[in-house]
Amino acid sequence: MQAAASSSHSFRVRYQETDQMGVVYYANYLNWFEIARTEWIRERGLTYKKIEEYGLFLPVTDASLKYIQPARYDDCITVITTMESLSPIRVKYSYEVRRHEQGDHAAETAGELLATGQTTLVWLNKHWSPIRVDKTAPELYGLFQKYCKP
Amino acid sequence: MQAAASSSHSFRVRYQETDQMGVVYYANYLNWFEIARTEWIRERGLTYKKIEEYGLFLPVTDASLKYIQPARYDDCITVITTMESLSPIRVKYSYEVRRHEQGDHAAETAGELLATGQTTLVWLNKHWSPIRVDKTAPELYGLFQKYCKP
Amino acid sequence: MQAAASSSHSFRVRYQETDQMGVVYYANYLNWFEIARTEWIRERGLTYKKIEEYGLFLPVTDASLKYIQPARYDDCITVITTMESLSPIRVKYSYEVRRHEQGDHAAETAGELLATGQTTLVWLNKHWSPIRVDKTAPELYGLFQKYCKP
Amino acid sequence: MQAAASSSHSFRVRYQETDQMGVVYYANYLNWFEIARTEWIRERGLTYKKIEEYGLFLPVTDASLKYIQPARYDDCITVITTMESLSPIRVKYSYEVRRHEQGDHAAETAGELLATGQTTLVWLNKHWSPIRVDKTAPELYGLFQKYCKP
Repeated sequence: MQAAASSSHSFRVRYQETDQMGVVYYANYLNWFEIARTEWIRERGLTYKKIEEYGLFLPVTDASLKYIQPARYDDCITVITTMESLSPIRVKYSYEVRRHEQGDHAAETAGELLATGQTTLVWLNKHWSPIRVDKTAPELYGLFQKYCKP
Repeated sequence: MQAAASSSHSFRVRYQETDQMGVVYYANYLNWFEIARTEWIRERGLTYKKIEEYGLFLPVTDASLKYIQPARYDDCITVITTMESLSPIRVKYSYEVRRHEQGDHAAETAGELLATGQTTLVWLNKHWSPIRVDKTAPELYGLFQKYCKP
Repeated sequence: MQAAASSSHSFRVRYQETDQMGVVYYANYLNWFEIARTEWIRERGLTYKKIEEYGLFLPVTDASLKYIQPARYDDCITVITTMESLSPIRVKYSYEVRRHEQGDHAAETAGELLATGQTTLVWLNKHWSPIRVDKTAPELYGLFQKYCKP
Repeated sequence: MQAAASSSHSFRVRYQETDQMGVVYYANYLNWFEIARTEWIRERGLTYKKIEEYGLFLPVTDASLKYIQPARYDDCITVITTMESLSPIRVKYSYEVRRHEQGDHAAETAGELLATGQTTLVWLNKHWSPIRVDKTAPELYGLFQKYCKP
């Protein structure tokens, strides 16, 4: 059986994330994507912190975002993160940012769609050179493979 | 004669913009794009502040970024901003993020390419509804038209 | 009986909050103080969002911070917030920032002390003028009074 | 003759620095203090980047801020930084945040006072242990001494 490629992570909008338009400043969605994929990794028994302790980095090389409805201060936000594709060199995630009412956990992954996005990440060593993660850290690659979308 | 569609704006990387990878955190490039298009507008005799005083907002609906080389603390950065297209409903800008040596002004727009990106912005009124800017603020539309890439 | 003057709120350090020193950038503690006092208010049956909907603002006029040990990426952080004093014009909060191990909820308010701080906030109306909250919003003042440290 | 203990550094308020109160979010003033002391160091022929290349860090141990008038989007801001005291172990700076009209350079250090603050910084080595900078880097200590307020 295929393990789940998606996870969801919920949090509230911080005051600092708003701007004078009265909505969340647009760069913060990239921050949310990163928080959500950190939690995606944690749910699979690993942490991004441990990946860095291996001497590996996983920086973003490409990102795209579509803003549909603005998020506002104190909104309950869920980011649904899906691993879309995987190779020994890079990983691609997609994201859906949704809003739900406080306490309505059923609605967390079915709330109003605020934004979508994608990021491509590449495996680097501590000298900032691309590596093949299946050679350098096969157990890491195995774990990621298990959860990739078919 | 066609007026220039491009402007460049230079600044230094702030310590707060770095992360523990030792490079600029990836969301900050969207912040830089916004600062650069603010200065693009100012160079053309208007300010984004005045656009908001008209009762108009110009939020981003789509953004894409390509990260090529990391920017680092205290780097001298130039963002070259180009208005790529314009309609009465939306504006599209492209960006190049380049690094140059301090004081080497000749190199500002010819330094090492660190990142590129594009954003699409849409004209909204204060009720957050799309408007046709050629109807609502024709002088604003006229100014933008003058500087659009042919 | 006196109602509790203190609340605690826990969260993880975000990657974006680190800097190239490998620790949390020092300005983020003010952000954490604000998040923690927002949750202090929510636990008492109100939200800061509703305070703004009343047409009131509660900005900070004075802040002080003492940094003891650095917080690091992915740390589990608890901020303990205490209302220290209250008048019809201003409110004073103190904060303790502590670190605990993931899942060790008993240690949340007893973990290693990383930072302490204080903020003074003043009640303003929407014209940014000081008000007496006991006159303008007595029920709000009553609620705050109930939870002030004796 | 005593060399100057103060420097001023000017910049514009970024959109990202505002919040939904329509003013600059309060944590950003700590960011501005850090930018201003970085430029204070640069004006004296050194860079904070080089200090880190020596293997030294200069993190903040204490900070205090007084908010007088709010800074707003696109304001021209000057931060006046003064080294208040110096020992082989720590450095203390004070800051004044002022607003001036665009292009009014005479007013840069005499504009409306928006905020004041102080920070204490301590010399650490790369293992995050306190050092005596007069022993570890006497030429650095000499440079700082030259500019300290009498």
